[in-house]
Amino acid sequence: WPGGGHVSAAQKETTTIDTAQFMAAPITQLDTLEANQDDTKTKMELLILRIQTEFCRALEREEVGQKFLVDRWQRHNPKEGGGITCVLQDGATFEKAGVNITVMFAPLSKQLQASMRARGKTLPEDKQFTFFAAGISSVIHPRNPHVPTIHFNYRYFEMQDQDGNNKHWWFGGGTDLTPYYLVEDDVKLFHGTLKGACDRHNPTYYSRFKKWCDDYFFIKYRGERRGVGGIFFDDLEADKPEDVFGFVKDCAEAVIPSYLPLVKRHKLDVVSEDQRRWQLLRRGRYVEFNLVYDRGTKFGFATPNARIESILMSLPLHARWEYMHQPEPGSPEYKITEVLKNPKDWV
Amino acid sequence: WPGGGHVSAAQKETTTIDTAQFMAAPITQLDTLEANQDDTKTKMELLILRIQTEFCRALEREEVGQKFLVDRWQRHNPKEGGGITCVLQDGATFEKAGVNITVMFAPLSKQLQASMRARGKTLPEDKQFTFFAAGISSVIHPRNPHVPTIHFNYRYFEMQDQDGNNKHWWFGGGTDLTPYYLVEDDVKLFHGTLKGACDRHNPTYYSRFKKWCDDYFFIKYRGERRGVGGIFFDDLEADKPEDVFGFVKDCAEAVIPSYLPLVKRHKLDVVSEDQRRWQLLRRGRYVEFNLVYDRGTKFGFATPNARIESILMSLPLHARWEYMHQPEPGSPEYKITEVLKNPKDWV
Repeated sequence: WPGGGHVSAAQKETTTIDTAQFMAAPITQLDTLEANQDDTKTKMELLILRIQTEFCRALEREEVGQKFLVDRWQRHNPKEGGGITCVLQDGATFEKAGVNITVMFAPLSKQLQASMRARGKTLPEDKQFTFFAAGISSVIHPRNPHVPTIHFNYRYFEMQDQDGNNKHWWFGGGTDLTPYYLVEDDVKLFHGTLKGACDRHNPTYYSRFKKWCDDYFFIKYRGERRGVGGIFFDDLEADKPEDVFGFVKDCAEAVIPSYLPLVKRHKLDVVSEDQRRWQLLRRGRYVEFNLVYDRGTKFGFATPNARIESILMSLPLHARWEYMHQPEPGSPEYKITEVLKNPKDWV
Repeated sequence: WPGGGHVSAAQKETTTIDTAQFMAAPITQLDTLEANQDDTKTKMELLILRIQTEFCRALEREEVGQKFLVDRWQRHNPKEGGGITCVLQDGATFEKAGVNITVMFAPLSKQLQASMRARGKTLPEDKQFTFFAAGISSVIHPRNPHVPTIHFNYRYFEMQDQDGNNKHWWFGGGTDLTPYYLVEDDVKLFHGTLKGACDRHNPTYYSRFKKWCDDYFFIKYRGERRGVGGIFFDDLEADKPEDVFGFVKDCAEAVIPSYLPLVKRHKLDVVSEDQRRWQLLRRGRYVEFNLVYDRGTKFGFATPNARIESILMSLPLHARWEYMHQPEPGSPEYKITEVLKNPKDWV
């Protein structure tokens, strides 16, 4: 990575980074991170390492004995980075919980260059580009249908040409909730916590990013959204990366307080066979959105030598498709589908 | 449909069509069918009505009491046609069996016009086009993991501009098998029966359409095929539609002899929990192919007011995704994945 290369600890005053706290060793060499602590790339990698650990540990405290399996992996070309995939499968509380971080330095393929241009980035055709991407992505599918599924993803991109010019950087991300049954207090707590993180940075963020989320998680052919939304944003820039980084950090830190209370409230709720069946049908819709529409998944499919298992970690352990299943009007199952068709304001 | 309009029975000598034999009444008005019995549109509609009935009845004979649910539906604008969807769900032998026919007369959307042009059809930009499509499509997901899943689809298209010029017609289709465990004799019987149907029409068909099938049902990001293939073809034309119709008829009639013996052989095989789990994991891959790659599904998603339930009828009742599941080298589960990675010649 030009300009972000190796500087030995002896050359510069550095603070020691305690990596023992993380699920696994950082992807970038430790001395590179220590020597470049003011670089947004370093800050983002350390943030996602910490958020991954805190979230996994918080979920484990809701489990009965089971711990996350930790899979640290490298890309085919280890110089291009890698990731840490943490998965807890078939637990008492969580049927499938995946928390993945990726740190990647790689040439930007022609296909992805074209898609960046389509999104309004200036990338001269005659230049070769490399990009850096660091992100955390997580989907939690609990066993109990009264505990919603949560997804969040926070990511930082940098790109520049071979001469170090035509630089671009931006943040993207979001957190969204997919309940199987509508409990308004749960949805209000969830949206209220995200709104709090947004409001500390910009009074327009929450309403803009809430709408963006409702628009993004839309299964067009079904005429319904994947869940009750949350926040979603992309291409977020400012004069200084620090300003956006502070917002993304607050959003990532809002995940636990927005979600863990719902797990604690409902993980032991009584469940009928019909409720379990309904949950599996809705998980089928989750699969439909992720495979047909999700931009992150498509980006993964388009990345040469992508690590498919880390991308499809978002899919539930079980899903079900029945022909023409229609919840009975007035039933709790019907009530949630009405909200998926017509998004509401929650806070 | 210009040129294919209503001619009353009194105007022309006709043979009576016995519709009582079908799962439901034809989509096209009976007197229109009776008055145009030499028209390929009529022949195709009657063929798919008959094949649907024969296949559903043959499957019901393998069930314990359960019958197909028959759902005859019309498009939002009934003049544009409709279909008959037959579904048998949660049976003793078949976990989900769907056999759908569609007969459609509709304007060709700009999006589909562009995709037809990309496939080499001459469609002048300044003309409005209407199309006729009649097809049968079926996916059978048996309960026992030792019985393979089968899919087949045979379809006929006609299109012309508003002046009745720039006519195009073609057939497409195929039959393919997705076993969970490899039983070579089963695969040989299946491929051998399809080859027989092909060889009666053209000595090059089987090898060309077998390869086309292996190429089509490829999950690129997994580096594996959906199953052990079969035959697949599209845009099949000739001097006279009758010649291709005869081939398509033979293929459609080969479905029962290629598949029913496998159902009979294995529907009562002993099944372990691990074998059931493996079947559900492979059903997850089936979902992946259908939602990410399948052209028929994408065509459906792109059709305004498409009947999504009839399109997604192909998805299994249950599917499963585990992180990093790898069958043990040398195991029966491993053996089938080797064949999915490296297609073989079976006959």
